[in-house]
Parts: sequence; structure tokens; C-alpha cells
Amino acid sequence: MPHIPLPEQLPGITGLLEYRLDTAQPIRELTQILLRGESTLSQGERELIAALVSSRNGTVFCEAAHSKAADLLLGDDEIARAVKQDIETAPVSEKMKALLHIAALTQKNGKEVTPEAVDRAREAGATGREIHDTVLITALFCLYNKYVDGLASLTPTDPAYYQMLGERITSRGYVRPPGGYQLQTH
Amino acid sequence: MPHIPLPEQLPGITGLLEYRLDTAQPIRELTQILLRGESTLSQGERELIAALVSSRNGTVFCEAAHSKAADLLLGDDEIARAVKQDIETAPVSEKMKALLHIAALTQKNGKEVTPEAVDRAREAGATGREIHDTVLITALFCLYNKYVDGLASLTPTDPAYYQMLGERITSRGYVRPPGGYQLQTH
Repeated sequence: MPHIPLPEQLPGITGLLEYRLDTAQPIRELTQILLRGESTLSQGERELIAALVSSRNGTVFCEAAHSKAADLLLGDDEIARAVKQDIETAPVSEKMKALLHIAALTQKNGKEVTPEAVDRAREAGATGREIHDTVLITALFCLYNKYVDGLASLTPTDPAYYQMLGERITSRGYVRPPGGYQLQTH
Repeated sequence: MPHIPLPEQLPGITGLLEYRLDTAQPIRELTQILLRGESTLSQGERELIAALVSSRNGTVFCEAAHSKAADLLLGDDEIARAVKQDIETAPVSEKMKALLHIAALTQKNGKEVTPEAVDRAREAGATGREIHDTVLITALFCLYNKYVDGLASLTPTDPAYYQMLGERITSRGYVRPPGGYQLQTH
């Protein structure tokens, strides 16, 4: 049961974002810019960072949603699963391995990111902007994970829910639907 | 040395927020709403949450800045220090102790927030909105702390810097100064 009264039909982050619309707006905007805006990282690569961080934080709702989004964007059901299991053996580029490693370090604590981890990313071709965005996406998903878990919002167990959610965030992004969620079943 | 090239004269979060202005805007807006917007928690109480979380994450820049902001807003140099040392013996209300305890649990991991911790806050008079905002402020400062530390932005050691910064964020809030920082010494 959530720690505060949240709309029952809106589990996970969705009900929280409807609970306080004025704070939700910049959170949605930041996510839309970072995960869907122009970038030399693909949308699928950015969703992999979100899925990995949520997995490391143990936030089932966010892990399932962003793994599904990565699957859909990458056209492959195995990559997110492989990244979460072991970055180094996952079927992603050397640059993505280095960036995912930086994400994993940042998830633990920002001070864990070493010059060596950054050098590895640079040597694999990562730009300063890509390193910056990796750290900021990680920080944003730590915000989401703490928000979702700290208020004990509901976590659906039906995989069909995450299929629906993954399709929503890959097709419509992170903006609030016009008129909100009142007329939707989810 | 920062992991990416940042303006030397803008340490801590300030240089990062200037590095990518499009993502900085919603981060600043969220902070302004949560820490300076209408609330039944005073601005000083909200800065205490920010200072405590930054201290627990070991992010010296944010801890120093928000402790100084709390000192200035509360008109007392000892409360933030006492909260960081031991919430239970700090000179704050029972409600604030319970909310700071929720913040401390959320900082570790959102799932650490127990129904008992929430009941304690409710019994001390906290509203659902205050519990929500405590969790979200904590989540936001975990974002800031990971952003600042993950990119190794510079941490000034001169206490005068934090006096200046504390005065800035208590008088002007978290919005970007018109025209940016080009003409300022900090």
C-alpha cells in the first residue's frame, strides 16, 4: 500500500506525477530532453542506462518499464537483460560498456567515478557531453527510483502492464497526455 | 579536476548547470518549486532536508551550501550541524525529526521507508503532502549529489564561498541570474 493516498488506477511513477502536477512538469520535461531529445546516444542506449540504474536500485517498476522501452527501441529483447546481468559481456559497443560502467559507479555514489573509468570512455570514443548525459540520466533515475520506492507506489506484476507502458513511452515520450489520465484505464 | 571541461570560475553545481542549459532549466524550476514554493514546511526546514541528504551522500559542496542556507533562513548556526550529527537530539520539532528520519531512509534506498516511519510522521502531525515533499526533496538532492560528485566538479574550501552562495540562494532562490554568470566573480 502506498504511504500516501495515490490514485489506485495509476501505479508506479504515474500516480505520483499526478499527485503533484507542478513538480511533475519539470521532472517530465527533464526526462523528455535527456531521453528523447537530440543526442549522439540513441534513445535505446539511453533507456539502457535507465534500466540498469533502476535494476541496481532494486526499483522493479522502473526497471521493468525502461527495460521494455529499451527492448522496443533496440528491436531486441535480450540486450537490456544482458546489460543488467553483466555489462562487460553484454552485446553493446565498447563505448556503451564504458558509459554503462560510469552509470553503475554513479548509482553507488558519484565519488566512485574514477578518472580511469572516464578515460576508458574517452578512449572508446565517448564525448564529454555523452559522459555528462550518462551521469545526469543516472542521477535522474536515482531520483525516480527513490520517489517511487520511498512512497511505496504500487508495482503491477502483470507483464502486459509494462508492455503497454513501454509502448507508451516509446511512442509518446514522457510528456503528460493532454487532459491527463482520467479517461484511460491505466 | 572535473571529468569534463567546466568553467573554472563556476564550481560545484553552478558550472554543471551552465554546461547544459536546456537540462538545467527544469532542474532549477523543480528546485525552486520544492524549496521556495508554497509549503507548510518552512524554507529553512526544507533546506535542512537538503543539507542532511547531501551530508549522508558525502557531497561536500551541496552539504556546505544548503547548511549555510538553512543557517541563514533559521537564523541559527547550530541546527543544521545538529541535524547532521543526530536527528533525534537536534533542536527541531517532533514532526521534523520524523520527516528527517524519512529523508535519511530514502537517501539509503526508497524501500527503507517503513510504514512505521510514516506512521510516526503522521502521528507528529505531518500531512501526506509533507511526507511526499520530504521524499521528493531527498530524491532531488540525491540527483544533485550524484551530478556534482559523478563529474567531479570543483569544491571550494574557503568558507566565504559558501557564505556568498548561501546568501545567493536564500535571497534569489534557484533561478538562473538574468544573463547568466559571465559578469560575476562566482
